[in-house]
Amino acid sequence: MEETMRAEIITIGDELLIGQVVDTNSAFMAQELNKVGVEIYQVTSVHDDGEHIRRAVAESLSRVDIVITTGGLGPTKDDITKHVLCDFFGAKLVPSCDVEQHVKQLYCNRPDVLNRLTETQWLVPDKCTVLPNRVGSAPLMVFEQDGKLLFSLPGVPYEMEVAMIEQVMPYLAKHRPTNETIIHRTIQVAGIPESALAIHIEQWEDALPGTMHLAYLPKDGIIRLRLSGYFDKNDTTAEQQINVQIANLEALVAEWLIAVEDQPLEVVAGELLKAKGATISTAESCTGGKLASLLNKHAGSSEFYYGSVVAYDNSVKQRILSVSKAYLEQYGAVSEQVVTQMAEGARRVCGTDYAIATSGVAGPSGGTKDKPVGTVWIAVATPDAVYSELLHLTGSRDQITTRACTKALTKLIKYLRD
Amino acid sequence: MEETMRAEIITIGDELLIGQVVDTNSAFMAQELNKVGVEIYQVTSVHDDGEHIRRAVAESLSRVDIVITTGGLGPTKDDITKHVLCDFFGAKLVPSCDVEQHVKQLYCNRPDVLNRLTETQWLVPDKCTVLPNRVGSAPLMVFEQDGKLLFSLPGVPYEMEVAMIEQVMPYLAKHRPTNETIIHRTIQVAGIPESALAIHIEQWEDALPGTMHLAYLPKDGIIRLRLSGYFDKNDTTAEQQINVQIANLEALVAEWLIAVEDQPLEVVAGELLKAKGATISTAESCTGGKLASLLNKHAGSSEFYYGSVVAYDNSVKQRILSVSKAYLEQYGAVSEQVVTQMAEGARRVCGTDYAIATSGVAGPSGGTKDKPVGTVWIAVATPDAVYSELLHLTGSRDQITTRACTKALTKLIKYLRD
Repeated sequence: MEETMRAEIITIGDELLIGQVVDTNSAFMAQELNKVGVEIYQVTSVHDDGEHIRRAVAESLSRVDIVITTGGLGPTKDDITKHVLCDFFGAKLVPSCDVEQHVKQLYCNRPDVLNRLTETQWLVPDKCTVLPNRVGSAPLMVFEQDGKLLFSLPGVPYEMEVAMIEQVMPYLAKHRPTNETIIHRTIQVAGIPESALAIHIEQWEDALPGTMHLAYLPKDGIIRLRLSGYFDKNDTTAEQQINVQIANLEALVAEWLIAVEDQPLEVVAGELLKAKGATISTAESCTGGKLASLLNKHAGSSEFYYGSVVAYDNSVKQRILSVSKAYLEQYGAVSEQVVTQMAEGARRVCGTDYAIATSGVAGPSGGTKDKPVGTVWIAVATPDAVYSELLHLTGSRDQITTRACTKALTKLIKYLRD
Repeated sequence: MEETMRAEIITIGDELLIGQVVDTNSAFMAQELNKVGVEIYQVTSVHDDGEHIRRAVAESLSRVDIVITTGGLGPTKDDITKHVLCDFFGAKLVPSCDVEQHVKQLYCNRPDVLNRLTETQWLVPDKCTVLPNRVGSAPLMVFEQDGKLLFSLPGVPYEMEVAMIEQVMPYLAKHRPTNETIIHRTIQVAGIPESALAIHIEQWEDALPGTMHLAYLPKDGIIRLRLSGYFDKNDTTAEQQINVQIANLEALVAEWLIAVEDQPLEVVAGELLKAKGATISTAESCTGGKLASLLNKHAGSSEFYYGSVVAYDNSVKQRILSVSKAYLEQYGAVSEQVVTQMAEGARRVCGTDYAIATSGVAGPSGGTKDKPVGTVWIAVATPDAVYSELLHLTGSRDQITTRACTKALTKLIKYLRD
């Protein structure tokens, strides 16, 4: 691992440090860089403060070869990254005709944006390479010092993503080709505690070669086992070496296996549905459309996902899903009888082969002694039968509904695999 | 601001640095700490690596008074935080009867979890205070050195949240009371470019007292203007001082105002619906249940939200929402005619006062010359009429559907306000 090229990310913005915005940029950048064998050593979030940014940049440059900053490139007073970097690298701001033309083109239909603040966007440091920002007005900057590179990208996620894919990655491939391949492979299991799983696979884990490393990532009832391997770029057996280990692990955990890839459960379910040429719908009470959103989140979902009825109010359960009023009165909405009728109803009104239904108490209020917060019934209707299950979940409202979706998808996957 | 108590967060875990997991913990912790006047100076994400953790801890302790680490407390081999901290603070691991009892109680119905790996959870450093972890097996640790505090919390979000609320915050209130109040207030606007807004409010912004600071947070067509004020804890006029500034700002941006609080749009809409005693439903094609999920995301939504029809496939649009086959054939699903019928259909079948509908091309495929990816029709049905609007959105599939939801909620809020 001596040869690994390392990078650091510095995210800039007070909003990150007061908890107003969650940093999703770092995960995206790390994934892209990992693909070409660049490892992220550290992510540092700092304030829109000149001294703070300067220190973080200096420290990162002292540790790694590539530093990427995001944020602080807007036209308003709180955005200072360009000025700080200019100062740090001993550069001065000069107008760029290319950036000016681009910004004017970008806003050609929006004269209200072409004002004196926007005009500052085409001032760029004279000691950097400016890469084009196709979807925004902030120039993308690359500084070079002692053979190390610093990229400054916008903090708006979409602009950062386009910049990474279209500019940073090709620039790195040209100027900093790597000698290493990093391969991450993930297996997902459910139904066994993390510690019991660790003991179960201990011999296999201890026998892993030094170039491979296992991590356990438990969340919402699923444990993701991630095997990371570090190989020479020219090692043509890299894939095969890690495949052998994954195959052995897969055999060991077959009983609890959910997926052999790091794909969300809805993608695993979608692939199984497509392979069967089958369709699906959902009927949701407590999950309120989350299952629907998951099933159609990814491109191509129209092949298998037809629709959903979010029957939050009991009147909607009756009107659209034909849940019986007698059942609602006798057993309540959170019952095996009602969730079964909901699944059957969705399958019928949406005209699909499969359907998933949920009905539960998501909280924080609405719990009773018999049905406390976290009581959730789920049902999976297949072409042959309806299978239901009672869950006792814990956590916040969001966690309970997320876990109910995870359980429902896990159950669906089981019946799709059978 | 000399008096501000500052903290840093260190998130520990390879999963954060390879982009497998997004760090949502820091935002939660920052919000909680801000409430009591503790400012987060920096967030640092490091690997499950002893040397790396040690360096980050030493650096953070050199800069601030309070350090909180999350992650690396599980029972498996990749989790090393406890050992590293033990070593760093010159402590040794000793068994804790309290933790042992707690863990045995926690897993009393799950004998499969009480194995030799789990048993390591009740070994704790002899130089720390152990706080109870009500919902997990990892002990919460507090180390003290030269008057500075380091808290070590689990990385699993739910466990971290319970630990912060029930243990860390009361511990800080007792042992590190603060002298400062930090107040953040946010106004949300839409329909004006960021730079034009900045020019429009420039005089107001320049006249702000030195204790207040404005930030611009643009996202998905909404700009959040956050005013942060730093006050002495005993300054009884703090609220009033910031309220005066916010009132002036509100008057300045009245034309584009969406909300005077940092609440998600669905909460703003929900409050307006509740105030009217009105109900709502949705009919969604391209947004696929996202609007439904938003509207019932928060506790108490059953007061105004009845249900939704996710009519992804055209057959579902016809079957449940009674969209006319002739319209679908003549104008296509992405049309003013169809989205209007969808909104009317949802309002009718769900029996609500209002309804929102969406139909568009979310991509990445499915676009045509006439209706490229990003073409989205939205409609708001009120008790009196249906209002529709054609959007041309950009971005990824997820961004297009998110922006469509934002636009639809903005439109709904407008009609609820009128």
